[in-house]
Amino acid sequence: MSHSGKTFHINAFLMGVGHHEAAWRHPRTEEHRLLDVEHFRELGRIAERGRLDSVFFADNLAVGPRIERNAPAVFEPITLLSAIATATEHVGLIATASTSYNEPFNLARKFTSLDHISHGRAGWNIVTSGNAEEAYNFGYDAIPEHARRYERAQEFLDVALNLWDSWESDALELRTASGVFADPDKVHRIDYSGERFRVRGPLNSPRSPQGRPLLVQAGSSESGKEFAARHAEAVFTAQRTLEEGRRFYQDLKSRLPRYGRSPDELKVLPGLVPFIADTAEQARALEQEFTDLISPDYALRQLSGMLGVDLTEHALDAPLPPLPAESDIQGGKSRFTLVKELAEREELTVRQLIGKLGGGRGHRTFAGTPEQIADELQSWFESGAADGFNIMPPYLPGGLTDFVDRVVPILQQRGLFRTEYTATTLRGHYGLPPVESRRFTPIPTAAGA
Amino acid sequence: MSHSGKTFHINAFLMGVGHHEAAWRHPRTEEHRLLDVEHFRELGRIAERGRLDSVFFADNLAVGPRIERNAPAVFEPITLLSAIATATEHVGLIATASTSYNEPFNLARKFTSLDHISHGRAGWNIVTSGNAEEAYNFGYDAIPEHARRYERAQEFLDVALNLWDSWESDALELRTASGVFADPDKVHRIDYSGERFRVRGPLNSPRSPQGRPLLVQAGSSESGKEFAARHAEAVFTAQRTLEEGRRFYQDLKSRLPRYGRSPDELKVLPGLVPFIADTAEQARALEQEFTDLISPDYALRQLSGMLGVDLTEHALDAPLPPLPAESDIQGGKSRFTLVKELAEREELTVRQLIGKLGGGRGHRTFAGTPEQIADELQSWFESGAADGFNIMPPYLPGGLTDFVDRVVPILQQRGLFRTEYTATTLRGHYGLPPVESRRFTPIPTAAGA
Ligand SMILES: Cc1cc2nc3c(=O)[nH]c(=O)nc-3n(C[C@H](O)[C@H](O)[C@H](O)COP(=O)(O)O)c2cc1C
Ligand SMILES: Cc1cc2nc3c(=O)[nH]c(=O)nc-3n(C[C@H](O)[C@H](O)[C@H](O)COP(=O)(O)O)c2cc1C
Repeated sequence: MSHSGKTFHINAFLMGVGHHEAAWRHPRTEEHRLLDVEHFRELGRIAERGRLDSVFFADNLAVGPRIERNAPAVFEPITLLSAIATATEHVGLIATASTSYNEPFNLARKFTSLDHISHGRAGWNIVTSGNAEEAYNFGYDAIPEHARRYERAQEFLDVALNLWDSWESDALELRTASGVFADPDKVHRIDYSGERFRVRGPLNSPRSPQGRPLLVQAGSSESGKEFAARHAEAVFTAQRTLEEGRRFYQDLKSRLPRYGRSPDELKVLPGLVPFIADTAEQARALEQEFTDLISPDYALRQLSGMLGVDLTEHALDAPLPPLPAESDIQGGKSRFTLVKELAEREELTVRQLIGKLGGGRGHRTFAGTPEQIADELQSWFESGAADGFNIMPPYLPGGLTDFVDRVVPILQQRGLFRTEYTATTLRGHYGLPPVESRRFTPIPTAAGA
Repeated sequence: MSHSGKTFHINAFLMGVGHHEAAWRHPRTEEHRLLDVEHFRELGRIAERGRLDSVFFADNLAVGPRIERNAPAVFEPITLLSAIATATEHVGLIATASTSYNEPFNLARKFTSLDHISHGRAGWNIVTSGNAEEAYNFGYDAIPEHARRYERAQEFLDVALNLWDSWESDALELRTASGVFADPDKVHRIDYSGERFRVRGPLNSPRSPQGRPLLVQAGSSESGKEFAARHAEAVFTAQRTLEEGRRFYQDLKSRLPRYGRSPDELKVLPGLVPFIADTAEQARALEQEFTDLISPDYALRQLSGMLGVDLTEHALDAPLPPLPAESDIQGGKSRFTLVKELAEREELTVRQLIGKLGGGRGHRTFAGTPEQIADELQSWFESGAADGFNIMPPYLPGGLTDFVDRVVPILQQRGLFRTEYTATTLRGHYGLPPVESRRFTPIPTAAGA
């Protein structure tokens, strides 16, 4: 079972009561715990029992297309993760937050708070918010253009990085006798002035244990990949086949040197929705039970949003109608292309497509025994398609418990996954070096414009 | 000791390691716990041991005037209170958040999260952010005008109130068999369109236990009082003498009927910084120890900010120079007037003024025995100057422990304060009825403009 001794990383992507869009209807799901903070704290402890690198909560700043059929994200992730931080000691805590609908000062500060509270376990999944419904909650009549959203994300991140460096790590002195609270020469204004933001700084908090949150990114469009190559330390991505996975991995890693970064500085984590059972047949039957609970009317609206066409009146047993070009999509470009190619490649009817997407809205679903799931992960890892995985339990808490108690031990036996935590910070779990505190040199203001 | 059987309310206003501006330098203070979340969770438990109504964390979106001398607010309050929520069961959790530098959708949603996480204990101290330094972190060259800030606060609150009512309390159905997640007729768009905000809604979370956070306000200018009379359910205020306290109380309460509210629907909580010791003399000596640790250079800058004049070169033993009129102050108007009147009335030099302000930046400081402090609170309560108190421990955790363990039992013996919690929500602690979930009728858009 030896394989060069390298180990991989595991993030648990926790969505309400499960990733499957019909999760809340299945008897294995504890759907009544949707609003129960103890449910989420327990999930954190289960992940920690499995020595997972991190847990992750997505976010969406609007209710979805049909509230009668499915759950919104409910909890604001940073607020929720703070409650989980105090129930756990090791596991990393990654929150989605939007660069389109926040102020950089406020968000930088919140992540610093979470990093202090968790003693160095905060991570930020940087998103630009791809749904029109979100835009309507922030004064827009339509979703801001894809390219503009990424430009704002870029500037937002420049501001945040400056703010996180505005306190040097030894700025706090607390010399009570002489009355020196902090060394003013180590606390810096940032005087940022860009196209969209003007922020004086410094941040109103001493530097946190990690210096800043782990920077995570999850958009796989061209702009998304460039952004990731420049900034991200971990990338969540939906890849359906090993071949696609390898191509994406190589593509993304090859972009890092242009930003003066080594490929190791970014971990690629494709998603997997695992249905786990004693036999492959039972696992497939379990998945089918979930598929059978999908509401086509809800799924059609969700699919309409992803594909930029109205499918609500479309026949379920027909193939997809003609679709727009990726360049016309202002929401999520990479997800659009993934779904389009999936439907074409496998010649799916809309009903079949909905079934395939139910588990993870495009992420790969895999039904099998614990051994088979371990094999699958090992093969992706060893074929150069992944540095680790974004595990998306279809229902909770059982889907996470099964993964942690049945799959993780196999990975550990094979030497593919840690048996104890060896680091104390989220960065450490992902094998990333500490962010050095540096003499402050402001990042240059966004070019020209 | 009988007095009509009425009891009062107590909020603990917790500031980092203490309210006194030199707290971090005094040996009684655990200044090294400034960044330690367990310090704050312990404070929550101490408050709960004393059956206090609530704990409160202020906020300020910038570092103060001289970082070498004093602590900024460090933790973002909602994130911090989420960690405290899981360490406590009863005590209310009030966070400051600014209407000037947030988006209503995001903030409404965060408070809903905190209210879910704490099972109905969230409160919001609504502030407009009165320091120029904060404005510079959000793209402004100068602080937005006082009147404009209150206008924005008004519109912000209208949006938030609409969002909190966008889910009726029985909207969540979770009917797994028929697949009905929520009743779409009970989840409403708000379609708010005002001068500053356009927000479609609904909120992306089912209604929280309290429906919305307890609404708290702490500005005592004319605009502040009108805002409070219209919306606030509790008011923090700095009143230095019993006479001023009574006048403020009557003034504020008399404004409620104009908004169709009864005076009981708003609780007035003047602040008090207690120095507690076995004898009055020891208590005064303790206060003096703190006063002696004040850095005049820091205090001068803080005072300059409050008064709108540069005092950094001003002689310490001279009286104040001539001051601007309140109408010229764009920061905090009521605090300006309080400090100005204090200096004039007591004919203070700048040095004396700084000493008086050190404990609570204008709030009343009182040094005495536990009995004397209880007497003082009782007298304010029974003279119609207070419905309760905002207790501001000068140093932490000892200043809170002493109040809870030495003053509270006296108040309880006198029948002035609860001996057990009788309610389960923050509103309940303050004797306020639940917010009824209503058939949704949008609050009209801000008038004209
Ligand atoms: C695993 C994963 C998690 C994501 N989580 C979120 C999220 O929480 N909120 C969000 O707005 N978008 C989320 N996204 C979407 C992406 O961040 C991105 O916005 C989307 O893929 C469109 O970007 P693109 O146009 O670059 O492909 C997620 C994507 C993936 C693969
Ligand atoms: C007890 C108390 C707590 C306060 N907390 C905050 C705070 O956390 N953040 C803030 O910006 N202002 C805070 N303030 C200031 C007021 O909210 C208000 O902005 C200030 O008094 C100026 O308002 P005015 O001009 O109406 O007097 C507080 C005031 C009091 C009395």
